[in-house]
Amino acid sequence: MSNKTQPARGMRDFLPADVRKRNYVIGIIKEVYEKYGFEPLETPAVENLETLTGKYGEEGGQLMFKILKRGEKLDVSQGEKGLSDLALRYDLTVPLARVVANYKNDLPKFFKRYQIQPVWRADRPARGRFREFYQCDVDAIGSSSMVVEAELISAVCEILQRLGFEDFIVRLNDRRILTQIVKSAGISEEKSTDALVALDKLDKIGSEGVEKELIERGIDESEAQLFVAMFEGFAGLEKANESQNTSGFDSFNQAFLNRWEEGFDENDLDELKTVKDFRQLISFCENISANQYIKIDPSLARGLSYYTGAIFEINVPDLAGSLGGGGRYDGLIGMFGKEQIPACGFSLGLERILVVMEERGMFPEELERASADVLVTIWDENSVGESLKLANELRQSGLRVFVYPEAHKLDKQLKYASQINVPFVCVMGENELKENKITLKNMQKREQQIVAREEIVQEIKRNADGSSASRK
Amino acid sequence: MSNKTQPARGMRDFLPADVRKRNYVIGIIKEVYEKYGFEPLETPAVENLETLTGKYGEEGGQLMFKILKRGEKLDVSQGEKGLSDLALRYDLTVPLARVVANYKNDLPKFFKRYQIQPVWRADRPARGRFREFYQCDVDAIGSSSMVVEAELISAVCEILQRLGFEDFIVRLNDRRILTQIVKSAGISEEKSTDALVALDKLDKIGSEGVEKELIERGIDESEAQLFVAMFEGFAGLEKANESQNTSGFDSFNQAFLNRWEEGFDENDLDELKTVKDFRQLISFCENISANQYIKIDPSLARGLSYYTGAIFEINVPDLAGSLGGGGRYDGLIGMFGKEQIPACGFSLGLERILVVMEERGMFPEELERASADVLVTIWDENSVGESLKLANELRQSGLRVFVYPEAHKLDKQLKYASQINVPFVCVMGENELKENKITLKNMQKREQQIVAREEIVQEIKRNADGSSASRK
Repeated sequence: MSNKTQPARGMRDFLPADVRKRNYVIGIIKEVYEKYGFEPLETPAVENLETLTGKYGEEGGQLMFKILKRGEKLDVSQGEKGLSDLALRYDLTVPLARVVANYKNDLPKFFKRYQIQPVWRADRPARGRFREFYQCDVDAIGSSSMVVEAELISAVCEILQRLGFEDFIVRLNDRRILTQIVKSAGISEEKSTDALVALDKLDKIGSEGVEKELIERGIDESEAQLFVAMFEGFAGLEKANESQNTSGFDSFNQAFLNRWEEGFDENDLDELKTVKDFRQLISFCENISANQYIKIDPSLARGLSYYTGAIFEINVPDLAGSLGGGGRYDGLIGMFGKEQIPACGFSLGLERILVVMEERGMFPEELERASADVLVTIWDENSVGESLKLANELRQSGLRVFVYPEAHKLDKQLKYASQINVPFVCVMGENELKENKITLKNMQKREQQIVAREEIVQEIKRNADGSSASRK
Repeated sequence: MSNKTQPARGMRDFLPADVRKRNYVIGIIKEVYEKYGFEPLETPAVENLETLTGKYGEEGGQLMFKILKRGEKLDVSQGEKGLSDLALRYDLTVPLARVVANYKNDLPKFFKRYQIQPVWRADRPARGRFREFYQCDVDAIGSSSMVVEAELISAVCEILQRLGFEDFIVRLNDRRILTQIVKSAGISEEKSTDALVALDKLDKIGSEGVEKELIERGIDESEAQLFVAMFEGFAGLEKANESQNTSGFDSFNQAFLNRWEEGFDENDLDELKTVKDFRQLISFCENISANQYIKIDPSLARGLSYYTGAIFEINVPDLAGSLGGGGRYDGLIGMFGKEQIPACGFSLGLERILVVMEERGMFPEELERASADVLVTIWDENSVGESLKLANELRQSGLRVFVYPEAHKLDKQLKYASQINVPFVCVMGENELKENKITLKNMQKREQQIVAREEIVQEIKRNADGSSASRK
């Protein structure tokens, strides 16, 4: 018999009020993704270890929850080897890649899927960081058209708007632009990742910090200076265009594209393609209702190494991290098959969205309502059947009904109704039963009335409309 | 790089069509449970090993998926000990007991919760048996009133009716009745479990088989004969009441209660309480709209040892196992606290419900519909923005829209629309763009019409109503 009743470290129980909030957000995410033609996919929590091994870098290998082999398969003689054959899902992208390879013939050529499921990482728990958390992924497989990026950005913006966010920014960049900037600064290809890792910290450590880190990472001082100077130039451009900013960030976005094009080499076909793609994406975004939220950010790098094209990230002012991010990864899906299949995706962080919405009080009032609309009391043991019958009728009409389970004194039953905050109580005492009537108590107004049995449903609904109207 | 793309053994991927069916069933289960005042609870997939250890008997210990300790905590020197500190959730009842103990002050006295989440068991996979499967549990904590049993039975029957089941039977028994029958047969208390284990096989091995097994389990021949004879008597009673069966099983239920009461000892207070409870439950059930499905089955034993009162199980003719089952377990919830708290619950087997519904073709037609209502084509690279704008407008009106991502030849785009079975296609060619019109193709009727841009939403909805009406 254990008296440890807490959930495991870094894991959480969700009591009813929590579940309702989570389901509210998930419901909107699903609804919007389905409007964009994305389809639901679910994969098992447990994957073969070899499916996941080597996909998440060294850190991923350490943070993965591995499952002990069962029975005779367990071989402890060789140390950690031979102990595990399965692991918990670490993200939703590798399972997607596996699914695309496995069901190739059953899936449409342009497979658009969303997937909202928990993942597990043995991270050190911290504020807002858990060992079990939900990812809300959406990915479009099979096309390298910028229509895909535009649609993804549009869907994600619509979700945030529907949830009530008004002050988010979709930062947009392209890995190929970053690569070209690195090249223009004279930094060698093998130092490219170092340059991007340092750049990723620009917000935190500033230009000087980045320059210092570049030099520490073995990049020549002159190259580092040039590299940093280019981003300072873009920042200056941004400042210059702030005052002209009439609708969103159009003015800076266009200025950046022009500045950037000035520097590119017209004989470089890769560069030409990048310019064309990125210009196209920006122009597509102008047709999206959320265009005002979209801002080019040439310093956006994104941590993951697998991105090959556009990258995006969503921020709000009152959260240090991002609400979500994504990008194009044309090489990743092919890792389980022979074919390279283009893909672009976005992942929303459910837990972060919930944190911000909680802090800002963004959840609709109806999520706070009681677990039932009506409590039906029990008068005595002989009339329980009548109470059950009434509950049944009320439920048929769509009301959520709690039947008090015991023939306690009425006072005690009413007190409980107050405690659980239920708005209406039905009492059927001896007189009411004789006369085929019901005493209806409006708990918010502290009023009661005698209602004919056959009118009780309408009467409750009439009262309910009244009280929700008066609350407004 | 692995080319093994299958899910892990005994685990399943759910492609979009599967997810839709699962969500349809889960949606109805949730809706009905909420109407009965049950609230959602979610607990983590991963529990501390010590929370689960010792709760599921020897078999449970073997079938549990245990998680390998991480990093320096892993100690392989002592064999299996020291290797694991966490395990995957094995059922939803033990986590509930932990939650009730942990949040005692935050939960209402009569805590009614439902929980629909996967559990994991390292069972040998077989037809309909998986290593990851969903349980749909509903439990009412805090009351020992038979109102709880009646409400649970009512809710479960409503779910099955809503799903379209008409031929299910809710078998009902009480562990205390079984105990008394065992006692009446002269079987000693320590052989009681043996007697029930043998009885559980009555359907499969018949009276003779049960008698043989009782003797093998060390029960006296005369006791075994008497025990079996009592159930033969009940079976005879059932036959005799079959012809009188006008509405459900009322006639047998009453005859059984009368027969059973004849034999009981009026001085035994436990027996008196059992009789009173069970009569009450049967009478409560008469007030439930699903009363015709409820049948006393004195031979129903249920495998789990923790039941203390009423037990129930739901069967349909074309499934060997049950669709779900449950009962009262007044001792279990207390295992994490000092207090014993009465509880009664029911668990529906999602996977079995899905299997039967699939075999019988019970899913509504709309689950088979395409992933989008409309496909918007791309005429050429210059008009992509117009297509995105149109898609945006259609979505605002609630339509699910798939934008074809590439400026392929129109034929190819239309062929794709057929493949994914989308009912409508919007084409905006040069002429249409000039005249502010859209060519709307009805893919099912193989018709097309030119529609003014501002009327496209209404026109699609009008056509959609028409085709869904014609499908009926």
